[in-house]
Formats: sequence, structure tokens, C-alpha cells
Amino acid sequence: MTRISLRDVGPRDGLQAASAFLPTEKKIEWFRLAAAAGVPDIEVTSFSSPRLLPQFADAPEVLPAAMAMGGFGVSALIPNRKGAERGFALKAPKLNYVVSASNAHSLSNVGRSTADAVGEFGEIVRLRDHLGVTTELSVGIATSFGCSIAGRVPESDVLRIAEELLSLGAQEISLADTVGYANPRQVARLVKAVMGLAGDVPLLCHFHDTRGLGLANVLAALDTGVRVFDTSIAGLGGCPFAPGATGNINTEDTAFMLESMGFATGIDIPALLDLRGDVERWLGDERYSGAIARAGLPKTFQTAG
Amino acid sequence: MTRISLRDVGPRDGLQAASAFLPTEKKIEWFRLAAAAGVPDIEVTSFSSPRLLPQFADAPEVLPAAMAMGGFGVSALIPNRKGAERGFALKAPKLNYVVSASNAHSLSNVGRSTADAVGEFGEIVRLRDHLGVTTELSVGIATSFGCSIAGRVPESDVLRIAEELLSLGAQEISLADTVGYANPRQVARLVKAVMGLAGDVPLLCHFHDTRGLGLANVLAALDTGVRVFDTSIAGLGGCPFAPGATGNINTEDTAFMLESMGFATGIDIPALLDLRGDVERWLGDERYSGAIARAGLPKTFQTAG
Repeated sequence: MTRISLRDVGPRDGLQAASAFLPTEKKIEWFRLAAAAGVPDIEVTSFSSPRLLPQFADAPEVLPAAMAMGGFGVSALIPNRKGAERGFALKAPKLNYVVSASNAHSLSNVGRSTADAVGEFGEIVRLRDHLGVTTELSVGIATSFGCSIAGRVPESDVLRIAEELLSLGAQEISLADTVGYANPRQVARLVKAVMGLAGDVPLLCHFHDTRGLGLANVLAALDTGVRVFDTSIAGLGGCPFAPGATGNINTEDTAFMLESMGFATGIDIPALLDLRGDVERWLGDERYSGAIARAGLPKTFQTAG
Repeated sequence: MTRISLRDVGPRDGLQAASAFLPTEKKIEWFRLAAAAGVPDIEVTSFSSPRLLPQFADAPEVLPAAMAMGGFGVSALIPNRKGAERGFALKAPKLNYVVSASNAHSLSNVGRSTADAVGEFGEIVRLRDHLGVTTELSVGIATSFGCSIAGRVPESDVLRIAEELLSLGAQEISLADTVGYANPRQVARLVKAVMGLAGDVPLLCHFHDTRGLGLANVLAALDTGVRVFDTSIAGLGGCPFAPGATGNINTEDTAFMLESMGFATGIDIPALLDLRGDVERWLGDERYSGAIARAGLPKTFQTAG
């Protein structure tokens, strides 16, 4: 039985796009219910500037609360060195940094070049080692499959960036289809090439369903050997460049596809659908997607185990 | 350059579920615009009982009009021998008959057993040969991947039915996921097994996106060698057993995935989106789905050729 690990990024990617502040105690309730539904990993918050993203002003309370709960892998996003400092101070088990493969996207999104963002990752690794904390450092390569500003992103750029990040000490690489441009053939090709560089360093994929190919891209990555995916409950989150479009691939639907195919995710889909109902009540008027929430599980559905 | 052929079933599967009667001249306009957008095949009508499905009361006008247009493959659905007689009388180039692999579904849907439906196909073949018409006879096996009434449908049942239909003279076999139960691993396995029986007889797949796996299932079938798929513009049509759920896989999104992967469909996606706008105006309040219509094509998109 092959195990596939889903990391729910709803509390980070989803809440980042949500209009209402979700109270800290509701965030913690979310983690408790997700863990009870068997979600193995959760990106619980972001150490972004509280002025820019007030949703995550409670990161210093949320991260320790999640760490104290146990039962699931805890990570948080860091946009820069300052965010890393805050995460290290709390002894975060894992922090997820982001570099954009498209220089234009990097400049527009975080106001610095791709090269500078890669350089800053080196500083973050050195800071961690200097502080003597054991935080695992993961890096997502945004716009790996194309960019809505720059258009095509050469695969050679993604490979060079991955190589630099690996040599600086990245302990996980995530290939992110930030704007929903990826297609299955491209996924298979790029994943294979990055795996060739990464050796034992795990590779995960972060797909958006903006153009409907999210689960087909999961299938292509799966066939190429990827065993970890970012997903989001109710498909929350996603792309500000495509208004009205769906966001991250949906946790429930991804778990349904994988379990139906005989892959074990550990996820109890009905329990996850209950949590989805809670999240919808908490957040109110947001964009929720997902086929299983609409149509229900097939009569023939069996959990892989 | 591998060519993939999409057969748009919107004018049949889609209109069958639509509440308003679409005037005959609008149906013909639909074919004209779809053909101009490069859609290679269209299921143009159904020779069903005009009392049961008044939408198709104009089948005797629609089919000859479509045949006279040229530029695309024309076929029509036949639910039974009586429908076949009407199609043969008009010298239909191709008629699509349906047998349900689930006996419970067959009894509920068309009031006869699977065995009787298979037997009636034999009569239809003999009638065609007796009349000396050259109509190609295609057969869809509904509920090939499971049934919302009976639950699991054994693969051995589907294989036995396929074998019987082939020996009776089926010139094309379509595996239909009528209720949206299929998963990619199941698709790969069943397609491979049926291909083993079918020899040179083409196999096509008819997927619904009821549970979000439509395009992942296309990918699995594609990897197994399938080169023809049923799709529906705007995702029209689908499953009366799953209210609110999406219907057939969407023509625009399927063409987008295939072209992005380097498969040639011949379809001009922007022209198809224009037609979608017309269809939405004509039909009014129906369930329209599709990601490309919401999010647009990627900046990087190139037609395969």
C-alpha cells in the first residue's frame, strides 16, 4: 500500500485570500478537526508582516498551539529572513520559504529579484545553523510552470534555481503551479528533471486548479513518483490574477481520487466534509470548490486503508 | 503529432437534460459554429420517442441538415430498434446504441434487462444489413465503471458484454462512466482489457465530471491508448442521479489539456468559447461548467497544430 501525504494549506493559502479575520481559537479548532479527520500535515500560518497580512497577526499564538497538539506535521510559511527569525524563535519544526522562478513575478509579488530571494534563503539557513535550532527548511519554487506576467518560464531556470537551493541546504523542494498554467506532460517532464537533481531530498507538488487540470497534474506527478501534495480544504486559496477561478486543488477531491486508486492518505473524507461545513460557516462568503462536497462519495467507495 | 478526436455530445446529452426546447434552426446553427471551431464529431440528436423526449422531436429534420453540412462526423443516439429504423430510413452515417452494464440501471433506465438490450443490438445489425444501408453502428456500455443503483459493476460483466457486442458486429465500443464513479487506475485497467478484446475496433471513452476526476480519467485513458473521447460544450448534460453535480467532461477544458500536452484536436478554443456564449444565451438557466471559460487560456498557450 503506497502512502501519499497531503499537506493542507487552507489555514495559510486559504486564509491569506479570505476577507474576514478568523479568530485564533477557530484556527486551532480547524487544526484539531483536520487532525481528527486524518490530515497528516497542515501549513498552519504565515510569518508575514502583520501590517500586510493581518490575518496572520496571531502567528506567534497559532504556531505553538499547533505544535502542542501533536498528531500532524506542523509547518508555517516564511516570506523572508524576518519571518524565519520569528519562526526560529518559536522553534518551528518546519518552515516553508518561497522563491519565484519568474523574476517578473518575484519583483511584483515580493519586491525583490529571484536571485536576491535565493540569496536570502542562504542567509536563512546560516541563521538557523547559527541559532542551533533544528527547524527543517522547505522551499517552494513559485511559477515553476509559467507566469501570468512573464509568460513562459524556461525549465532550465527552474532547474538552476532548484540546484542552487539544494546546494544552500533546502531539505524539501516544492514545485508550485502558482497561476494554474501546468499541464500533465509538462509536470511529468519537470518533476523528473528536478528529481534527478534532488536525490534523497523530497519533492512535493503544489497545484492550483485554476484551469481545471489540478487532478490530472496530480496524476502525472504521481506516475513520476511524487508522494506529497499541497491541497486545500474546499479548494480555498489561489490565484489573485484569475478572479472567479478556483484556487488550490481541493483536499477532499484529491483524497477521493487517491483512495479510489488504492493509495492510502489516512484521510476520513466524511469527517473532512464535516470540517468543510464548519469552515464555510466561519468564513462566510468565500469561493468554495469541490466535486465530492456537491455530489457525494460513490456508493462503491472504499478507503484504501 | 498524435491526433485526438473529440465528439461533442452537447446537442444530444446536453439538450436531453435541458428544460427548454431549442428550435431546430438554433440546433443547426450550433453545428455550423462547432464545425467552424474545428469540432471533428458531433452527436447531433437522438431517435428517442418524441413523447418521452420532445427535445428530439425534430430529429428527422436535424440529422439530414447536419449530414448536408459536411466538415464534421455526424452521429445520432438510438435507444432501441425503433430508433434505429428511423435512423436507417434517413441513411444516418453513424448511430450510437447504448447498453447498460448494470442490469438494475438498464431496467430502471430503459425498462429492459442488459441481456435483452444486447439481444436488440443483434436485431439492429441484422436490420441494417437487411436494408443494405451503410450506417456504422457504435455501442456505448453505460455504467461501465459502477452504478448508483447497483453499486459495483464487475469488470468481468463489462468484458463479457463488450465481447458479445463485438461478436454481434459493433464497429466501435464506448466505455461510459454514466454516474461519475470511475478513477484513473480503474480506467487504465478496464480500457486495457477491453482493447485486448476489441482488436482493430476503436474504443472511445465517455466520462462525466460528476466527482471531479473527468480529466484525470482522460489522462489515464490517453496513456492507455484511447484516441477518441466524448465531451460536451460547457459541460452540459450529465447525471440526473446527482443533482447540482457537473455533467459530461467539458469540451473546452479537455481540448485545452490535450493541446497543452501537444496533442492535436483541431479545435480553436476561443471560437468554441464564443459558441459557448451563444449556447448559454439560447438555453438560459442551465448548469454550465468549465475552468477555461472562467479563467481564460494561459498566456503561454499554444495550439499543438
